[in-house]
This record gives sequence, C-alpha cells and structure tokens, in this order.
Amino acid sequence: MRKKLTLAVLAKAAGGTVRGPATLRVGGVNTVSEAREDEITWVSEDRFGKELETSRAGAVIVPSAFGATPMPAVLCEDPQLGVLRILELFAPSVPRPPVGVDSTARIAETAAIGQGAAIGPYVMVGERAHLGRNCVLHAHVCIGADTSIGDDCALWPGVVIRERCQLGDRVIIHSNAVIGTDGFGYHFAEGRHQKIPQIGTVRIEDDVEIGANSCVDRAKFGTTVVGAGTKIDNLVMVAHNVHIGSHCILAGQVGLSGSVKLGHYVMLGGQVGVADHLVLQDRVRAAAQSGLTKNVPAGQVIGGTPATEHRAWLREQVQLRRLPELDATVKGLIQRIERLESAANHR
Amino acid sequence: MRKKLTLAVLAKAAGGTVRGPATLRVGGVNTVSEAREDEITWVSEDRFGKELETSRAGAVIVPSAFGATPMPAVLCEDPQLGVLRILELFAPSVPRPPVGVDSTARIAETAAIGQGAAIGPYVMVGERAHLGRNCVLHAHVCIGADTSIGDDCALWPGVVIRERCQLGDRVIIHSNAVIGTDGFGYHFAEGRHQKIPQIGTVRIEDDVEIGANSCVDRAKFGTTVVGAGTKIDNLVMVAHNVHIGSHCILAGQVGLSGSVKLGHYVMLGGQVGVADHLVLQDRVRAAAQSGLTKNVPAGQVIGGTPATEHRAWLREQVQLRRLPELDATVKGLIQRIERLESAANHR
Amino acid sequence: MRKKLTLAVLAKAAGGTVRGPATLRVGGVNTVSEAREDEITWVSEDRFGKELETSRAGAVIVPSAFGATPMPAVLCEDPQLGVLRILELFAPSVPRPPVGVDSTARIAETAAIGQGAAIGPYVMVGERAHLGRNCVLHAHVCIGADTSIGDDCALWPGVVIRERCQLGDRVIIHSNAVIGTDGFGYHFAEGRHQKIPQIGTVRIEDDVEIGANSCVDRAKFGTTVVGAGTKIDNLVMVAHNVHIGSHCILAGQVGLSGSVKLGHYVMLGGQVGVADHLVLQDRVRAAAQSGLTKNVPAGQVIGGTPATEHRAWLREQVQLRRLPELDATVKGLIQRIERLESAANHR
Repeated sequence: MRKKLTLAVLAKAAGGTVRGPATLRVGGVNTVSEAREDEITWVSEDRFGKELETSRAGAVIVPSAFGATPMPAVLCEDPQLGVLRILELFAPSVPRPPVGVDSTARIAETAAIGQGAAIGPYVMVGERAHLGRNCVLHAHVCIGADTSIGDDCALWPGVVIRERCQLGDRVIIHSNAVIGTDGFGYHFAEGRHQKIPQIGTVRIEDDVEIGANSCVDRAKFGTTVVGAGTKIDNLVMVAHNVHIGSHCILAGQVGLSGSVKLGHYVMLGGQVGVADHLVLQDRVRAAAQSGLTKNVPAGQVIGGTPATEHRAWLREQVQLRRLPELDATVKGLIQRIERLESAANHR
Repeated sequence: MRKKLTLAVLAKAAGGTVRGPATLRVGGVNTVSEAREDEITWVSEDRFGKELETSRAGAVIVPSAFGATPMPAVLCEDPQLGVLRILELFAPSVPRPPVGVDSTARIAETAAIGQGAAIGPYVMVGERAHLGRNCVLHAHVCIGADTSIGDDCALWPGVVIRERCQLGDRVIIHSNAVIGTDGFGYHFAEGRHQKIPQIGTVRIEDDVEIGANSCVDRAKFGTTVVGAGTKIDNLVMVAHNVHIGSHCILAGQVGLSGSVKLGHYVMLGGQVGVADHLVLQDRVRAAAQSGLTKNVPAGQVIGGTPATEHRAWLREQVQLRRLPELDATVKGLIQRIERLESAANHR
Repeated sequence: MRKKLTLAVLAKAAGGTVRGPATLRVGGVNTVSEAREDEITWVSEDRFGKELETSRAGAVIVPSAFGATPMPAVLCEDPQLGVLRILELFAPSVPRPPVGVDSTARIAETAAIGQGAAIGPYVMVGERAHLGRNCVLHAHVCIGADTSIGDDCALWPGVVIRERCQLGDRVIIHSNAVIGTDGFGYHFAEGRHQKIPQIGTVRIEDDVEIGANSCVDRAKFGTTVVGAGTKIDNLVMVAHNVHIGSHCILAGQVGLSGSVKLGHYVMLGGQVGVADHLVLQDRVRAAAQSGLTKNVPAGQVIGGTPATEHRAWLREQVQLRRLPELDATVKGLIQRIERLESAANHR
C-alpha cells in the first residue's frame, strides 16, 4: 500500500502553493510520460508544457509563473528543488540497524560512540576511534584506530576507513569504498621499488558523499582532503595528498593522481584523469574521458587528451574528421600548381 | 591425483564422436603448445592443424570435417563449445558453504530462504528478503530488506545487494560488487549540491554475471535494468536508470552514465564510456576506450573519443599520423606558388 | 606526544653522516616549505638549495657532496632513499590484530597457520589453505580453499583471495581487492554467451603490493602471474592469463585485457588500457590514458590511443592543434592559385 499525501502537504514541503484542490492526494512522483493518475509529475520550463496535454499525471509541479495546466498544480520557484523535497516525502524508509551496538560488533574499549548511533553486525571499531551522534554503521564496516567520525554519518556495508582518518558531519560513504589506504609511493633504488611509508592521513569534510568501491588514499605525510559538500561517484580514485575543494562533483571512474589540487565547484566528467601535482582552479569543468596534463585557470571548460579548451577541442575534432577532405584538396592543388608551372615553363 | 576421463565420456559431453580409441583416458585440457601426453587439446580451424604435428597432446578436439590428426580426436560441430563442455567435466569443484544456514549468518525472521540454499558465515539477509532454491551466499554477503533473489544464484564473498532489488535465476555476482547503491543525483541550489532521493530499484535478469568490484546503481525512480544473459566484467560502473538489453557484453572498467539505454547483443570494449541518456541499439560494438557522445544505430561498430564509425576513426588516425607530411607538402606548395607569383609579376 | 630522534640515529638509518650537532633531536619529516623547527626536511638536488634559506626546518637531508646549509644536515648518497628510511623511523605504528587467531575467525580444520600469524575478527580461511609465518589478516578477509600464502604478508580488511591461488612472501593487499575471480570468458553459441569454466589460478610473487579494490582474475587454465616486486595501485583490472614480469608499476585504474604479457620494469600510467594478447617488453613506459593496440618493443615510451611512440604522439597533438591554421593556409593557397590560373588564362 502506497502512502498518499495531499497537494497541500506537498506544496508545504516544496515551499510552494497549490493551484487547484489542495486536498487532492497523490501517491508518488514520476516523469510526464510515465506518471499515472495518482502520481504527481513536474515541468521545469514553459517549453515542456505541451507534453502535459497527453500526460495521465494527477498533478504537476511547475514554476511559479507557469501558465494554465490540464491538471492541478503545485507552483514553486525552483521546480527541481520542489521535486527533490517531494521525493523525500515519498522515499521509502531505508533499512538500517537499530540504535545501539549489535552484539556481534567489535568495539574497542577505548573507542567512544556518540548518542543515537546504530552499529550493525560484524562491525569493527578500533582503539580510540570516535563516532559522533546518530551515526549509522551498516554490517561489516571497519573503522581504524584513532579515526574520528562526526555526527549523522552513514557508512554502508563493507566500507573500510583506515586508522587516523577524520570524517566530518553528515558524510555518506557507500558500500566497499575504502578511505585511508597507503598512497602509491615508491623510491626506485637497488633495482627495486622501495615502499615509501605513507604516514599522513585523510580528512573528509562535512556533507561529502562518496560512491561504492571508490578509494581515497592517505597522504605520504600531511593530509589528503575532500572538501565540504563535494560529491564523489562510484569507482573513483583519489590518490595521496590530493586536495579537493568544496562542492566539487567527480563523476564515475575519475582518477586524480598524487598531490592534485582542485578548487571549489570543480566538475569532472566520467573517466577523467588528472596528472599528478596539477592545479584546477575554482569552477573548472572537464568533459568526460578528458586527460589533464596542465594546470587549468578558474572557470575554464576543457576536454580531450591532452586536455585543451573545450570548444577548441571540439573544433579540432571536426577538423580531424575533415582531414581526408583537406588531404584531397591539397592533392588537387598540387595538380593545379603543376599545370601552372608547366605552362610557365613552356611560355 | 588428477581425475582421468575416457574420450568416449568427453565426446558425449561435447556432443561429438571419437576417432580412435574411445577408452583412452586424459586428465585435463590445455593449449596445443602446452598440453602434455595425458591432456587433450583443441584446434578450431584447419589452418591451425599443422601445429598439431609438434604437440605432445594425447588427444585433440577438432571440427567434424577435420582431416587426419597425429593423435586420437574428438570430432564436434563447434569445437569451442566442445572444449567448454569438456572443461566443465575437468573443472575442480568450487568450494562453497554447506547447504543450510551458517550459525553466524544473520537472517531476518521475515526473510524466506529457498530449499537447498547454502548460506555462509557472517552473511546478512534483511527483512522480507526472498532467496530462491539452491542459492549460494558466500561469507560476508549482505542482502538488503525486501530484495528478492531467484533460484541457483551464486554471490561471492563481500557482495552487497541493497534493499528492494530483484535478481533472476542463475545470476552470478563476484566478490565486492555492489548492487543498488543510490544513484549519483544532485540538484544545485542555495550554493550546494542537494541530494535527490534515489527511490527506485534494480532488476538483474536471469543468467547475468557481474564481475568483482562492479557497481549497478538503483534508479532515481523506476528501475535500473540488466537484461537476461548479459555479462559484465570487473570494475564496471552502471549508473542509475540505465537499461541494458539481453546478451550484452561489458568489458572491464566500462562506464555507463545515467539513463543510458543498450539494446540486445551490444558489446563494449574495456574502459568504454557512454554519456548520459544515449541509446545504443542492438548489436552495436564499441572499441576499447571509446567515448560515446551520440546515439548509435543498430549494428554499427564505433571507436574513438568522441566516438565515430570505427573504420572512419581508424582512417582518421592514419591521417593524423600523416599530418607532419601534409604540413610539409603545404609548405612546399607555398614556395612553388611564390615562385609562380613572382614569375607572373616580373613578366 | 611526538617521538623525537637524534640526527645520529637518523643518519645511521639513512646510511649517511651528520654535519653539525649529532645530538640534535627532531620529531618528524616534512617538505621544505612546511617543515617546522623540530622537523627535518630534504633537498635532493643542488638547484633546490636556495629554498632552504627560507625554510624553518631544524635539519635537512642532502646529497653527500652538497654545499653549506643554513641548518644541520644529514648527508647521504641517495637523499630520497634516506628520507624513506627516516620516514620508517617516524611512521606511527600501524594497528593490527594481536598475534593468534581471533575467536570469531573461521579457520578450516585442515588449514595450516604459520607461527606469529595475526588473524583478525570474522576472517575466513578455507580447507587446506596454508598461511606462512607472521602473516597479518585484518578483519573480514576471506582466503579460499587450497590457497597458499607466504611469510610476512599483510591483507587488509575485506580482501578476498579465492581458492587455489598462491601468494609469495611479503605481499601486501589492500582493502576490498579481489584475487582469483573467474576470468571473463564466454563462448557465443545458441544465441547466448556460454560461460567458459575458468579452472586456472593466480600466482602473486614476493614483494608485490596490490591496491584497494583492484582485481586479478584467475586463468582460464594455467596461471595469471604478477611478478616479484611489482606494485599495483587502486582499482586496477588484471584479466585472466595475464603475465606481469618483475618490478613493474601499474598506476591507478589501469586495465590489462586477457593474456597480456608484460616484461620486467614496465611502467603504465593511470587509466592505461592494453588490448588482449599484447606483449610489452622490458622497460616499456606508457603515458596515462594511452590505449595500446600493438606489441611494444623493449624500452619504448608510448602514448595516445591507439598508442604510438610518445614523442611522435606529442608532435601529432601539436599539429592537431594547428589544424585550423593549416586549413586557413590551404584556403589562402586556393585563392592564390585561382588568381594565377585566371592570370594565365587571360594572357
């Protein structure tokens, strides 16, 4: 049985107002084409309004100044944000261990666990580790010695946080991600790669989310940093001594080499690679799969490998595609020049 | 001590016939150059027949119409398939937990476990989860609440399947793969990336195999789908709302962005990336490392970043390699034109 | 409280000599710009000597023939190696389970555990597995049946080693890495991909280190090999039947397809992909993100996709960037030729 909520309740959550019957109830959110009669849909721009005519949706979320709609509407300033708030109302509750420490969890005697924490089966918490309030550690999570975790964090099954790391508040880390592994550092001597001790640590700031199977390595010395509000997708590699600023987005399978520095609001597309020690300033954006080999000034949009300004790269690609044509043109010119030369010689 | 089997037994498994002594016994399968006297090898085409002359193999699997061989032969229509069936006979038994539920496994009271299931140590099965018959859950597997798993599935150590997912029959998932993590979705408002609830789910159909450390994210809403018979290698990223058809092949480290749609029999080489919302129709094939930025019609073979028709891309690469030559040619033309112009002016 | 050590102790570890007060104590190592008064820094070449003038470091590690320094010095032949040895002295002790077998570890009765081994909570060790002396198995590690592990190995939480694999001595494997999963092998018949049994195994030789969430698949038959002293970063994919020589370096997210062969001292940058069955001879180096489609002779440095000689590739990239210019030049030539032709016709 689906939970049903009135448009009045939805509008309140979305910070908007109802146009139509405020007591109408809907049971979910869906796209314009897939929504059923008991669901609410959304349109974020006027130009998509026409699609509403054929939608079966029982209601729609639209921008405040939006025209008439075939069904009752929730008007809000930022419809996307409205959808987000309404989705939160309909989101099924996420299963989690009960508050308290599971009998099979192995908590070191010197560890400190905050109020309201929920610690699942077979979890390990090392010596002198510190967990804030209301943290949820799902099954099989490992927290190393001397690691500190803020309030309201959620660590999903299989997450490993090694020793001496720091996590802020409201950090979410998805299954089997690994934080604080030794950085990849060797010195070649005597015919072999000798391991450089990686004695630094990792700091993950407030409101960071890290995807499944991603890795953030500990610093050689000093600290690898993931700044507040930064979101990291699955299978991402963050090497030792990287500093990521606030509110960055790293899409799936991105790789940051050692000592890379990212400013704030940097956005990297999927599978982007960044060479070691590079600096990407605020609001840099890199197209998927690009390979960065040079520092990038603030706000620049780049693409390609080696990466260059994105529009220049697109032009290059067009021109690359026209190379056969250019080649043929040049061959034609050679013939014309030969004719001209021959004529000149015979004159 | 190796198990030894007669050619008669092997031929029966391979759906073929014996040419030579049917009671000859061999103890394994190996390549033409590495096979020993007590092993069987295989040759799939006539042109490789010559290599048999120097092989020590005690027997050989060949196509039905194959000529004389220096050793006894098993003839079958599809020798590759024959090798496969014979390998199955010789495959060492794979260790698995005994049938039943390990005393340390944590099975929710409301979960249903099918007959013949084998559940290893420290496994977690959430509320109302449903496991089919003969499933094997190795150590440390986590199954979320309300997740349903078909018959004859095998989940290797460390696999995490989050809540409300569905797996068909005969699904194999390798160690530390993660199914059903939140999709990577945020709405930027008020200066920060606000998490969009990911309330959808994942459906993995019959006969799918998913490699170690791969990820299949749950849909924002609706369902992320991996179609029947599709095989996914290690470290592959399947984002939210992706729909993969039947019998596709995704090689290692492939990344599919959100809402990508793949038809049936699509084959993606290693490290291929596909941009969000693209549609790849049936039997599309993409070369390793290619980066797809446009929809691809059925049957097309593509390569490069941004990806284009594969042969065109190869030609481009050849021409790119000849650019220095073209550049020199153009420089030569400039000189010839200057001479012509100069001659014309002096006339 | 930080441990403090005299320069005499540091010089002994570094195999060097002290210039200045040998009893001076420092409490850590740091970079020239970040070192504090009670820390030692290092300079590996004369040209960086000037930076010492503004450093607050209490001491410095320099090459043996280095000139005067503003602070006491430890002189050694290879300062990088010296730093490494001194870092080892200051490295905080890494937490590990106590020697012995945790009461919750599940060790098969037929398994053999060497002296001094430390086996953490919820570890699984299969039938007939063999662990050498002084191995450390952190929480949640799984060792398959018939797998053999040498002396002094460290396996971090969540590592899975499947059945019948072999690890040498001093092997380090980081969290959630997976060794010995089935290779990705299918034979297409009867409209579907039929799984080829992967009955081979994996051999990891002495002194190998493998990063978090990396995968090394078992051979179809025979053995997947990682040679002695090779270092593999996080999220790397090593497919079935790959043979990696000694002392190679594979940076993060590298992917090696099936049956690839690497010689010794090969170095692959981040996100490099190598097509199946290729041979890379000794000391080959590939730039990050390059895609290898051909065999590479010893010592060659390559880059690009498809990869070519590195300097040629860089030249191509430069020329690619100049394509618009070349295009404009050719357009200019056309006009000049037209004028010449027109003049010739009117004469």
